[in-house]
Amino acid sequence: MSSITIIGLGPGDVAMRTPQAVAALARATDLVGYGPYVARVAAPANVVRHISDNREELDRARHALTLAGSGRDVAVVSSGDAGVFAMASAVFEAIEHGEPAWATLDVSVVPGISAMMAVAARIGAPLGGDFCAISLSDNLKPWELVLRRLRTVAEAGFVIALYNPLSRARPWQLGAAFSALREILPGTIPIVFATAVSRPEERIVLTTLADADAGHADMRTLVLIGCAGTRLIARGDGMPWVYTARSVSEA
Amino acid sequence: MSSITIIGLGPGDVAMRTPQAVAALARATDLVGYGPYVARVAAPANVVRHISDNREELDRARHALTLAGSGRDVAVVSSGDAGVFAMASAVFEAIEHGEPAWATLDVSVVPGISAMMAVAARIGAPLGGDFCAISLSDNLKPWELVLRRLRTVAEAGFVIALYNPLSRARPWQLGAAFSALREILPGTIPIVFATAVSRPEERIVLTTLADADAGHADMRTLVLIGCAGTRLIARGDGMPWVYTARSVSEA
Repeated sequence: MSSITIIGLGPGDVAMRTPQAVAALARATDLVGYGPYVARVAAPANVVRHISDNREELDRARHALTLAGSGRDVAVVSSGDAGVFAMASAVFEAIEHGEPAWATLDVSVVPGISAMMAVAARIGAPLGGDFCAISLSDNLKPWELVLRRLRTVAEAGFVIALYNPLSRARPWQLGAAFSALREILPGTIPIVFATAVSRPEERIVLTTLADADAGHADMRTLVLIGCAGTRLIARGDGMPWVYTARSVSEA
Repeated sequence: MSSITIIGLGPGDVAMRTPQAVAALARATDLVGYGPYVARVAAPANVVRHISDNREELDRARHALTLAGSGRDVAVVSSGDAGVFAMASAVFEAIEHGEPAWATLDVSVVPGISAMMAVAARIGAPLGGDFCAISLSDNLKPWELVLRRLRTVAEAGFVIALYNPLSRARPWQLGAAFSALREILPGTIPIVFATAVSRPEERIVLTTLADADAGHADMRTLVLIGCAGTRLIARGDGMPWVYTARSVSEA
């Protein structure tokens, strides 16, 4: 009793949810999270659901810790992986700066299939070389730092997975990111907009940096930016495969 | 019939293997992969196992495609995620440059829990901010490029997951990487050596960049390099939690 488990549900399809996550959910007396994620979990009627809005991670973490401190077994659920731009770091931040008793709780983290891995598998193997994951949100870091990091990794030849590319509160950042990248990378670099991967409303757009239109993204979209080694292979029907060659010849 | 599926088995513990991966394995007539990974898969006796050595990815991919072309349903298995320094990109590379008939096969990729996500969950939330994954192997890219990428992302404040940090063929690279990073990052930066995570022989060492000893790594080790925002939280017993704060104040 008195536990808190931060669980990655995977990208949506329960076939990508691990047995470890399913077992951890089955032990919970309380589910805590952003509404659409909590709604993905089937649970008996006596399990209490605590729904909160997006962008309230730290308050949600404190609420979950308070529940656990009162003797509940709390599952904090995130989409994708619990530790990738999700709730795990918010919970540890709340523990470090919160009630001393919270540091004595039984805390665990259960990983999940992160959006970038699900998207990559869906379209081929675009993460075949070195890659990085960047949140485009400037809620928690200055926009100038986001831009500097983007330019830096693009120049160094990394494939880039952009999380949180767009929301009502951040309508222009993705377009500005594409503009910055166009100064560094060729216009032919493949760009993938992958929205709601593995869910019924899945939508995937393959385009190039020259033609990339931020209008293809919403808050459920992961944007993948290829590198010089990212290649397309035609398929009989449908979208070409996208993969990144493992070898890089020039330093 | 005539299919090839590249499957991520996850880090070892079958509780972290997805139902999607289990279902894909159950459809295979042939298992192809590095011996220790194929050995992790339970399968009926009539399923044919094709074992190959490490560092033969392209030959293995061609062998798997030849089998699929002859009417078999082939599962190519990787540890962790199939698309992260694993077999998926090798298979697409073989398709692009191989027999035209290979492009007409039924190809799919099944993601898995990558080592960096499993390690992160095990120790806290070290990937809480922007992060990148770099293979330290210089089989497929010049060592100078590896060093340049490491310096670049360390300067830009990314957490770094190092795959393939060490092998008999690459005994000195990890030590050289630490030396390069010590010129950029404070000696207090947390470093984690995580070997065989989720398996019985799991071993985790938490240290600092100043004290990091490449001798803690072998070919089953993932090395995590923190950033300025990576923090430790003491626990009653055992290793402290390691997490990276979500906020970065300075550009």
